[in-house]
Amino acid sequence: MNDVSLAPPDNARFAGGAAYARGGFVPMAEATISVLDWGFTRSDVTYDVVHVRHGGFFRLEDHLDRFSTSMRKRRLAPPEDRARMEEILHQCVALTGLRDAYVAMLCARGRPRVGGSRKLSDCDNHFMAYAIPWIDVLTPEVQERGGHLWIASVPRIPDASFDPTIKNYMWGDLTTGLMEAQDEGYDTVVLCDAAGLLTEGPGFNVFVVKDGRVSTPAHGSLGGITKKSVLELCAMEGIPAAVEDIPRALLEDADEVFLATTAGGVMPISRVGKRIMGNDRPGPLSSRLKDAYWRKHAEGWHSTPVRYELAMP
Amino acid sequence: MNDVSLAPPDNARFAGGAAYARGGFVPMAEATISVLDWGFTRSDVTYDVVHVRHGGFFRLEDHLDRFSTSMRKRRLAPPEDRARMEEILHQCVALTGLRDAYVAMLCARGRPRVGGSRKLSDCDNHFMAYAIPWIDVLTPEVQERGGHLWIASVPRIPDASFDPTIKNYMWGDLTTGLMEAQDEGYDTVVLCDAAGLLTEGPGFNVFVVKDGRVSTPAHGSLGGITKKSVLELCAMEGIPAAVEDIPRALLEDADEVFLATTAGGVMPISRVGKRIMGNDRPGPLSSRLKDAYWRKHAEGWHSTPVRYELAMP
Repeated sequence: MNDVSLAPPDNARFAGGAAYARGGFVPMAEATISVLDWGFTRSDVTYDVVHVRHGGFFRLEDHLDRFSTSMRKRRLAPPEDRARMEEILHQCVALTGLRDAYVAMLCARGRPRVGGSRKLSDCDNHFMAYAIPWIDVLTPEVQERGGHLWIASVPRIPDASFDPTIKNYMWGDLTTGLMEAQDEGYDTVVLCDAAGLLTEGPGFNVFVVKDGRVSTPAHGSLGGITKKSVLELCAMEGIPAAVEDIPRALLEDADEVFLATTAGGVMPISRVGKRIMGNDRPGPLSSRLKDAYWRKHAEGWHSTPVRYELAMP
Repeated sequence: MNDVSLAPPDNARFAGGAAYARGGFVPMAEATISVLDWGFTRSDVTYDVVHVRHGGFFRLEDHLDRFSTSMRKRRLAPPEDRARMEEILHQCVALTGLRDAYVAMLCARGRPRVGGSRKLSDCDNHFMAYAIPWIDVLTPEVQERGGHLWIASVPRIPDASFDPTIKNYMWGDLTTGLMEAQDEGYDTVVLCDAAGLLTEGPGFNVFVVKDGRVSTPAHGSLGGITKKSVLELCAMEGIPAAVEDIPRALLEDADEVFLATTAGGVMPISRVGKRIMGNDRPGPLSSRLKDAYWRKHAEGWHSTPVRYELAMP
């Protein structure tokens, strides 16, 4: 144990971010994982990302719920209980002093305790967390003009092979799609499944707007917390919304498209493949939802104030 | 640079293994990767494993060829060239002094050089390597009695979503299969694709023997170096062998089954699912190939002597 929180804080050490690793708090440069950890060599790890805005976590309980479910589904059980994990997240942010932050938590399989064992149940699972300055999936400039979205030729890994509601780092297919997109000069990418149904992109859910109606894929994608927020905002704003199968053709023929992610919120798209939508600018409904999303943040919607006092025990 | 090879060796530090990381040689405990590296957070990394037996690398050039191809396909380009990588592998083994070793190399995407960039081409790719004491996928005791192989219900990630000839850490489907196998009391697992064709298991290729003929899957699996060796041994021994599609039913009805991997060589199987083969012992043809594989090792087949002098510059 190397619990820096019990010592006087040394904020300069944590300016680039603060992490919890191997039972103690460390600067980001020391937030590492062994190259022998199955969390790395088998990508046998689950994670979650929650953001802090105006000094408050957004939907912290929802993120902890999802993270707990992901860990249970992968049979990952670190020594820290939920209350302790929550405290650690507060403490990471508190050590940085950040009012806006990207906060990640993960649980990795670890290595077998018993020499030579290949048993998953013999591994010491371990929890890590970190808070770093805010990251956007699309830069603020790109969000302003509307993102340019490429539709990948590579099919998303099927739900049958790996449950996409378990937040995971197995991004090989997404990275291949991103290579295609960046080769073509696009900002990011979305993947369809083998049947041609829309799924998700690297780190975000996708929404399509057609004739005033909003829809997002029912399968092949993460149960996004921002997606959940968008659906709640639609209900508040009286906008019809559905979670359903979306054929690629509907994406290509949409009136508007936007992305939803913790790392950026509601992000309007102005181009899908070769098609330019709405005068090459973010569409009205996407912009309305984006504004509502950030306005609600400023009002303290689903906000849990960060316990900054934890940096000063 | 922290090139320990230029200092007098300190073998005690490297007893548990020696690694090359961030341009220098370090003990295994310091062989870590940042939790922010896309090699971890996107499993955007490729690797290879070569073994050392009797003080010599086995098929080192073949492993370096495959690793180079994997890196090229994923557009990973570390600063070290092939000659330097090869020297580093020698140096890692030399520092440990091991005569039998498991030697891994990997190249990870790294992080964008430019703050806020999401571009793959903006990342500093980095090469790592390590040598540790020999690891078997199946323990020697299990290899002796014949492994018990479970057939997973989860389908292998399709080739279309991620090319399985690029050696990768995206083992989520394999891990799910391994959970099923270990729940049922089996040693390891093999996966079929969605069409019910045999693919591979966690870290190995699979061979089926039927009526004196050996076969291994044509798709859905790594181009294994041990698989290549087995096919060469079959040719030498006059055993008919084929690379072809293998339906699950053929696996279940096989006379013999064996696995092929760097981390264990030719490993006979005595049970496939509920079926017990050949009096619950390794089959004659599997045993013959296993013996030939190790006999050829002792004869120096495809062996490159480790340059142990690199530990003593």
